[in-house]
Amino acid sequence: MHTALVIEDVRLTPILVSDPPLLNTQGVHQPYTPRLIVEVVTRGGTTGVGETYGDGAYVEPARSLAEALPGRAVTDLNGLFALAEGVCGDVRAADGGGDAGADDRVDAGGLRGVRNAEKIRLSVASAFEVACLDALGKAVGLPVHALLGGKVRDSVEYSAYLFHRWAAHPGPGEADDWGQALDPAGVVAQARRFADTYGFGSFKLKGGVFEPDREIAAIRALAEAFPGRPLRLDPNGAWSVPTSLYVADQLKDALEYLEDPTSGTDGMAAVSAGTDVPLATNMCVTTLAEVPEAFARDAVQIVLSDHHYWGGLTRTRELAGICRTFGVGLSMHSNTHLGISLAAMTHVAATVPELAYACDSHYPWQTEDVITERHTFTGGRLTVSDAPGLGVALDRDRLAALHRRWLEDDGTYRERDDAAAMRAADPGWATPAVPRW
Amino acid sequence: MHTALVIEDVRLTPILVSDPPLLNTQGVHQPYTPRLIVEVVTRGGTTGVGETYGDGAYVEPARSLAEALPGRAVTDLNGLFALAEGVCGDVRAADGGGDAGADDRVDAGGLRGVRNAEKIRLSVASAFEVACLDALGKAVGLPVHALLGGKVRDSVEYSAYLFHRWAAHPGPGEADDWGQALDPAGVVAQARRFADTYGFGSFKLKGGVFEPDREIAAIRALAEAFPGRPLRLDPNGAWSVPTSLYVADQLKDALEYLEDPTSGTDGMAAVSAGTDVPLATNMCVTTLAEVPEAFARDAVQIVLSDHHYWGGLTRTRELAGICRTFGVGLSMHSNTHLGISLAAMTHVAATVPELAYACDSHYPWQTEDVITERHTFTGGRLTVSDAPGLGVALDRDRLAALHRRWLEDDGTYRERDDAAAMRAADPGWATPAVPRW
Repeated sequence: MHTALVIEDVRLTPILVSDPPLLNTQGVHQPYTPRLIVEVVTRGGTTGVGETYGDGAYVEPARSLAEALPGRAVTDLNGLFALAEGVCGDVRAADGGGDAGADDRVDAGGLRGVRNAEKIRLSVASAFEVACLDALGKAVGLPVHALLGGKVRDSVEYSAYLFHRWAAHPGPGEADDWGQALDPAGVVAQARRFADTYGFGSFKLKGGVFEPDREIAAIRALAEAFPGRPLRLDPNGAWSVPTSLYVADQLKDALEYLEDPTSGTDGMAAVSAGTDVPLATNMCVTTLAEVPEAFARDAVQIVLSDHHYWGGLTRTRELAGICRTFGVGLSMHSNTHLGISLAAMTHVAATVPELAYACDSHYPWQTEDVITERHTFTGGRLTVSDAPGLGVALDRDRLAALHRRWLEDDGTYRERDDAAAMRAADPGWATPAVPRW
Repeated sequence: MHTALVIEDVRLTPILVSDPPLLNTQGVHQPYTPRLIVEVVTRGGTTGVGETYGDGAYVEPARSLAEALPGRAVTDLNGLFALAEGVCGDVRAADGGGDAGADDRVDAGGLRGVRNAEKIRLSVASAFEVACLDALGKAVGLPVHALLGGKVRDSVEYSAYLFHRWAAHPGPGEADDWGQALDPAGVVAQARRFADTYGFGSFKLKGGVFEPDREIAAIRALAEAFPGRPLRLDPNGAWSVPTSLYVADQLKDALEYLEDPTSGTDGMAAVSAGTDVPLATNMCVTTLAEVPEAFARDAVQIVLSDHHYWGGLTRTRELAGICRTFGVGLSMHSNTHLGISLAAMTHVAATVPELAYACDSHYPWQTEDVITERHTFTGGRLTVSDAPGLGVALDRDRLAALHRRWLEDDGTYRERDDAAAMRAADPGWATPAVPRW
């Protein structure tokens, strides 16, 4: 093995990035949200970068993995997961929900689906896998997509990610000029700006915030404003089966798909059996262990992969193979992320022939980043980079500034908690039980 | 993209390699069997090699793919399959069995499972994929396993592949000193020689040749001669469900697994339901399309992958991911192959963590090869090469000689047909209907 490809050092930088007051069924995005930046430095002097969730439950095992990695090659991706299993130890559950036993589930209201030790480990390892691929690509002069079997398209389509939102956070936070969007007209105005600025041709509305009829009205307003464009609605599992079926029936002519209308495989299978609207998920199926039952019961028709959850880019491609085998569609989920992860998403999405839906991305909402050149959506698409590695470069000043914010935080924002953020505006707010409607 | 990685030329060399008179349920191996050697030459002057089946049904589409490939990069593996679909045209079924419609099956007695246009295309493309990986690895100085995420073991275990056999072919053919093996004592002697020469620690007997009790006796003799060693029996689907259950019951304490006792998913599912002996397959599940039903019905517990069938090394890894997801075991099938394919098998096997069984290989039976240094089994294992690419080099003189044999063949051996070969000894022989017993 090339000595130059052996890992010499790993740097972890937890940061806090600003996030607008976007509403979801659990509450509201915090003004600052934690992310973790991973740098893998080879003996040859090449640095690869990765990015993942930054809550404590991720940062702690990441430190163990970072310590264990030096001396291994950046090509040793298959060994990374066994290593993570060995060194990450007693990974605890994130987001304040229960223990991290192998089969534990967090509250069904959680936004990232099942939360168990393996999934957290995979979410951690994913940042290292991406960083290794970036370093390997740079070292051998190949873009990451070429290390994944090559791109099958030159650009990747993304959809506009619409949110009900406030004009500003109730307390601290960075200002923006989007204004509030709390009704159908506000949602359409937001969509219009997204379409005009970035050319997005499909739209996803985060739902589960208001009573279903109000969100149905928002989708209808979008359908009227953008006739024929693919529309999606995602209440993060907030509805009962009957409510889900009611919404599906109301919107059956408008929706490209309905995302996680209800919580759990039982509920999703029941909704699926009662509607022709395709169901997508990033909550019902987020681990391999959930695949067999959900697929056997036809509970979902589209899996929205998230390379963080699934353990990186190679495993995302494995998921694509599984979906192809079972005739299930594939697209991509997004949580708040920065440009490193967007680059990783774009590279892997470019390599999957069967990707048939525009991918989700929160990126347009993120005004802060740690890369020198922000990604730009044109015609709703990102061009796939052919530069070596991911094709992004760290802006070390920005990284240092966002790390300082993390260092200076008194603990308020280091753990993402949308319900706690909501309590800043509504002291009586509690995480809603599901089904909420 | 590196100009050096762009494909400049593709060379195809059909050859005939000698093969001993090994018996199976369809007949006997021909004295010479066709293989196809693929060379991919880059603009940078790097040559990568691959190998696949050499029957006309494979050679013809391979010529179309070879013509279409120049100008593409050796990294463009994901695009290779769409290209093959586009250019290979009206692929016909191989092995004299019916049309090549998408869902056609050959006679259930066929040794390679379902035979349809897509599978033949994948078998063809696999040789190009391996050749591209070999070339890419050589160009960037990385072993193929590193291009597949890295080895998780330094050597790969193989099992001894035992056959009932004659001492010599009835007509033309190369001689060897193995002698005949037509009874339990002969099988044990063969196993002893394999164990002594190569250190194999597990044994697979090709069955379906004699009545089941005679093959049961052979396995019992092996169990007595090699107590505690993993044993397998593979009649290539020749038995009925009751016969399969009878054999499974008789050998339940001796067998590691029973391979394709009967033909078809219905039969395999029925056998599986009636025995605790694990069932392995390289006939019931040989394409992605066969996976969902077979897994849902628990028809097989171990898939014996063949990177030729499955479309190369990356797709073999995808299959491993599918098997992991569904709790199905994975090992490797072998058809008559040479050292290029053995190198490819060893590289991919080294990268799959869940490989829990010794792989099959006919290689010890092959006295001819096209590489300069033959692989050597030690302790039943092959060391995984860390040299760039596959770690093998073409012996051009040998390749030319075996190609001459193919050129000079009057058509007798260019299509592998074990029943036709049997007719040289037994003019009345017809491909047996299944179940044979």
